[in-house]
Amino acid sequence: MGLLETIKGPQDLKSLPAEELPALAEEVRAFLVDAVSRTGGHLGPNLGVVELTIALHRVFDSPRDRLVLDTGHQSYVHKLLTGRQDFSRLREAGGLAGYPSRAESEHDVVENSHASTSLSWADGLAKAFELRGESQGEHGRRVVAVIGDGALTGGMAWEALNNIADAQRPVIVVVNDNERSYAPTTGGMASHLATLRTTREYEKLLDWGKQSLKRGGTPGRLAHATLHGVKKGLKDIVAPQGLFEDLGLKYVGPVDGHDTEAVEHALRRARSFGGPVIVHVITQKGRGYQPALADDADRFHAVGVIDPETGEAQATSGSSWTSVFADEVLAIADERPDVVGVTAAMRAPVGLEPFARAHPERVFDVGIAEQHAVTSAAGMAAGGLHPVVAVYATFLNRAFDQLLLDVGLHRAGVTLVLDRAGVTGPDGPSHHGVWDLGLCRLVPGLRLAAPRDAATLRAELREAVDVDDAPTVLRFSKGKVPAAIPAIARTGHADVLEGPAWAQGDDVLLVAVGALVTRALDVAARLRAHGVGVTVVDPRWVVPVDEALVDLARSHRHVAVLEDGGEVGGVGWALAAGLRERDDATPVHGFALPQRFLDVGARDALLDEAGLAPQDVARALVEAVARTGQPERPGPSAAVPPR
Amino acid sequence: MGLLETIKGPQDLKSLPAEELPALAEEVRAFLVDAVSRTGGHLGPNLGVVELTIALHRVFDSPRDRLVLDTGHQSYVHKLLTGRQDFSRLREAGGLAGYPSRAESEHDVVENSHASTSLSWADGLAKAFELRGESQGEHGRRVVAVIGDGALTGGMAWEALNNIADAQRPVIVVVNDNERSYAPTTGGMASHLATLRTTREYEKLLDWGKQSLKRGGTPGRLAHATLHGVKKGLKDIVAPQGLFEDLGLKYVGPVDGHDTEAVEHALRRARSFGGPVIVHVITQKGRGYQPALADDADRFHAVGVIDPETGEAQATSGSSWTSVFADEVLAIADERPDVVGVTAAMRAPVGLEPFARAHPERVFDVGIAEQHAVTSAAGMAAGGLHPVVAVYATFLNRAFDQLLLDVGLHRAGVTLVLDRAGVTGPDGPSHHGVWDLGLCRLVPGLRLAAPRDAATLRAELREAVDVDDAPTVLRFSKGKVPAAIPAIARTGHADVLEGPAWAQGDDVLLVAVGALVTRALDVAARLRAHGVGVTVVDPRWVVPVDEALVDLARSHRHVAVLEDGGEVGGVGWALAAGLRERDDATPVHGFALPQRFLDVGARDALLDEAGLAPQDVARALVEAVARTGQPERPGPSAAVPPR
Repeated sequence: MGLLETIKGPQDLKSLPAEELPALAEEVRAFLVDAVSRTGGHLGPNLGVVELTIALHRVFDSPRDRLVLDTGHQSYVHKLLTGRQDFSRLREAGGLAGYPSRAESEHDVVENSHASTSLSWADGLAKAFELRGESQGEHGRRVVAVIGDGALTGGMAWEALNNIADAQRPVIVVVNDNERSYAPTTGGMASHLATLRTTREYEKLLDWGKQSLKRGGTPGRLAHATLHGVKKGLKDIVAPQGLFEDLGLKYVGPVDGHDTEAVEHALRRARSFGGPVIVHVITQKGRGYQPALADDADRFHAVGVIDPETGEAQATSGSSWTSVFADEVLAIADERPDVVGVTAAMRAPVGLEPFARAHPERVFDVGIAEQHAVTSAAGMAAGGLHPVVAVYATFLNRAFDQLLLDVGLHRAGVTLVLDRAGVTGPDGPSHHGVWDLGLCRLVPGLRLAAPRDAATLRAELREAVDVDDAPTVLRFSKGKVPAAIPAIARTGHADVLEGPAWAQGDDVLLVAVGALVTRALDVAARLRAHGVGVTVVDPRWVVPVDEALVDLARSHRHVAVLEDGGEVGGVGWALAAGLRERDDATPVHGFALPQRFLDVGARDALLDEAGLAPQDVARALVEAVARTGQPERPGPSAAVPPR
Repeated sequence: MGLLETIKGPQDLKSLPAEELPALAEEVRAFLVDAVSRTGGHLGPNLGVVELTIALHRVFDSPRDRLVLDTGHQSYVHKLLTGRQDFSRLREAGGLAGYPSRAESEHDVVENSHASTSLSWADGLAKAFELRGESQGEHGRRVVAVIGDGALTGGMAWEALNNIADAQRPVIVVVNDNERSYAPTTGGMASHLATLRTTREYEKLLDWGKQSLKRGGTPGRLAHATLHGVKKGLKDIVAPQGLFEDLGLKYVGPVDGHDTEAVEHALRRARSFGGPVIVHVITQKGRGYQPALADDADRFHAVGVIDPETGEAQATSGSSWTSVFADEVLAIADERPDVVGVTAAMRAPVGLEPFARAHPERVFDVGIAEQHAVTSAAGMAAGGLHPVVAVYATFLNRAFDQLLLDVGLHRAGVTLVLDRAGVTGPDGPSHHGVWDLGLCRLVPGLRLAAPRDAATLRAELREAVDVDDAPTVLRFSKGKVPAAIPAIARTGHADVLEGPAWAQGDDVLLVAVGALVTRALDVAARLRAHGVGVTVVDPRWVVPVDEALVDLARSHRHVAVLEDGGEVGGVGWALAAGLRERDDATPVHGFALPQRFLDVGARDALLDEAGLAPQDVARALVEAVARTGQPERPGPSAAVPPR
């Protein structure tokens, strides 16, 4: 029986002799490589925080003390040490969540997987504990936030630091510095952390200076006294903690994050200090796993199912939406020197890597800083460029005000490309991209397209970057792009995909958004089998809803909208509003995601659960048509080919 | 003829002899006090930047160089110096805008009045100028951002600094440090700026040290060499620029912002540097105007019409929505020790001042940091408190992701109070609070109430803070609260205000949101005069739309919704969706604000323009009723009293 199996909770960890900790760390790493290579998950980040997490649970007393993990994907070790060792269904419905989960354990606090929030949570918890009289004294409740150097580039982290530093509450901020989030961390903050890392060499130089001074006579002593007397200056000379201490935060570090003893010592000092303190811990992402350490591109940040020995991924085939975008934006960039790319610390995942390799001076990684990404894009547009800002759909939430006022109000020619729109799968509620349609529809003048296949993605991207007086947005799904789905006609902006009599009207108009075109075609076949006449249309541009689409809707007896986003403010709501404005009573049947937080789950399963299974959509529509009168043409016509 | 009248643009300013500048500054101040006391406007901030703005236009070459003003309410001096000296209709429709306006002048860049954006704009502009080959060399295009110390507490500013510092583009960041935005600036950053302000005394101490060292022999020289040799340490000793230099930004300052010569000198140094540089300018808000300087509460930040001699405001009467909230939240706080207040640098304007005076330890000013305000509130809720976060409605845009995931996903008992919801008036497009209803409706589990008068504000605030497992929001208007509007019945959450036969059904159900109840009652009287039967209902809680309200709608032949927000995602859209879900075809007529950027204008005039004038609403509804058949009861009944 190994050590790990004996750890049922933090108390077991506390009673373990210090000399057994390295062995425990090795067991944890072996467990992680084995378990995560079977299920996929965030391997690299967790391999980096093994010793740190062990030390945190030995020094602090969770859940009385609260441990807040920023972007909780590095919570696997924490889970192993708090009674959760069944990783067999990691990131599956019913299995262990890939992020902290309050439903799983009283040791979990924050489930949000968006970066840079932990310090604000910590500030709030510390304020509560203080007001409730729980944090006072040496044994008072402590709040510990663990935040990566990447997440420190996010503006929220700054807002929180500014507040934490201003008070004397016992907040311990552990900076987990591995010099990268998905990619090497950029910006002034990263340079500053690099300076801090070299402190030891620096102190040696100063020691030499001090010894020299001591050897002198009176003037030397004076100089020594000057050095020591000027408190602020001396502190900066002995250890240039710089930024953090300038804000008023005590700084401890840098500490080797793989030396359990050193980390424990630093954390105990921080705990006893009783005020706000930064503990700067240097860790190595992927520590102990050769394939991860050997990989410059950090593909082991999050992995699918892999071979645990080699780190090779299981073979997959076909192009992803992301790779089609990557290819086309590069082609556009080759043609147009005014087109630039912007990413918030995710150059490779969002498909800007080929563009950056070909034109390194024209792709900007701004850090985990969506607000700055969007507003600096407005500035670039004002300066004569056309920026393409590529982010995951869920992270657009962070930059709504900037999209609205800096881009929208200024009619800036900025294109946003939202990857992972709609249901995403294993990352849970905060990663599903189900808010972007409702958000974007609030922005006056904004136009949003949802391509259905590779060709429409390429075409709509080109249409988007040709607009220089308004924001344009493209949204597409996670996963593989389907085979080409040709149009039979174009009306307004919309492609008619199937439908014998769309100009003359028909029973049902099926409006299909983006990747849901595939499901819509399935629905159409089922409707025809029931003798229901149906037209299938891809509106292409779904914000705003096109007048021509409203006209098309009016020429049908029923309209159904299939979309891969929250129902509120979606295409269904907007099309219905367009019909209401014309006092048209054509019923609109909406098939969208319910406006609630969707759990972990496979994409298709979650869509089915939301009522978007083709058989369910078809049944509902057959019933609706039946309620309003018989179909005009007799069935069966399942064999009618799409035209 | 004064000096000011001779300044038609920056060129005239450049040719003015330096010795005439103090007289020009005096003229500008006299002009501002005279003009702004007639119209109202941002007096204090502009009095503080007279010399700074003169120096900026003498040193830089706008519009070739670009001047970006953060929260452009300090643009009045800039306007005076760029050919705009008619202030007679400041902040009125058709008059001079209170913020920069690209329609007014080629010297204006950013119209957004939300704080902390200027550095991102500047970074974007500098990137564009560099890529286009326009910024290189001594005479290349420069970008200057002027940002207050308050705005530096916003996270966006940090994201931008982090990026600006990382490159070598010629961006000049002028920190306009007056130690306050609306109120004294809080946080670690403010303390750091205070440290920088004392540099001069510090340098004197160091001078003494250096002189002492020079007097010594060899050891003294060694010590001196050590001081000079340890570059980083020396720099910190001679001028503890700290934070900015730690990030990699050159620091110039502090400079007396009312000494034109000193400011010009510092700006010229910064201009010639050719890389990113901070110029730290100390200014005095309200400079030269005794009533402003004598006022600790900074009521001269923005003024209404005032007596220019005394600064006394013209008398107004009646309570504002804000003061009713201020009174009730204090009463609640007196009863419940777990209730705390949170403000983003606007304690007095949002009505948290009485609460803060009574319970100073329970009201937190987090700086201009809405993201932190909302997420730290989630943390406080997790720690056992009930936070009330009070912000202007338009600033909620900044914290959407935090509201959604930190508060909403975690079902945190946090109450947001949105003041200035709906049309606000003279501050223009970025201050109208017309986005909050659409945003809040996207958040699963969130409940939002829109009180119609003082009594419902008090009651709904109490209902909100009683909810401890979901976000709650109150929204109300700018201005005076109307006299009490009593209900005649309650159905679900809704108050029925007028209507003879609401349970049995009637011609029109008028759904009135918040302050629009007053207009709805006017509409109802007009409808009755035309013989149209009408029920008027205040739903009170408008997110989500209540099932009982949908039932009520189904018992009427027409539904009309009056709301003071953008139509997208508004109450009209949601109620229509509720009816569609039940396959109910009752027509919903929406009377909301169009989804576009509303200009400056008086509140009532803007509402009328948007189609919300009672006579227009009534006419549209009479026509709609006529189209669907005759009213059931004959008119006239203008004399029918409300029941």
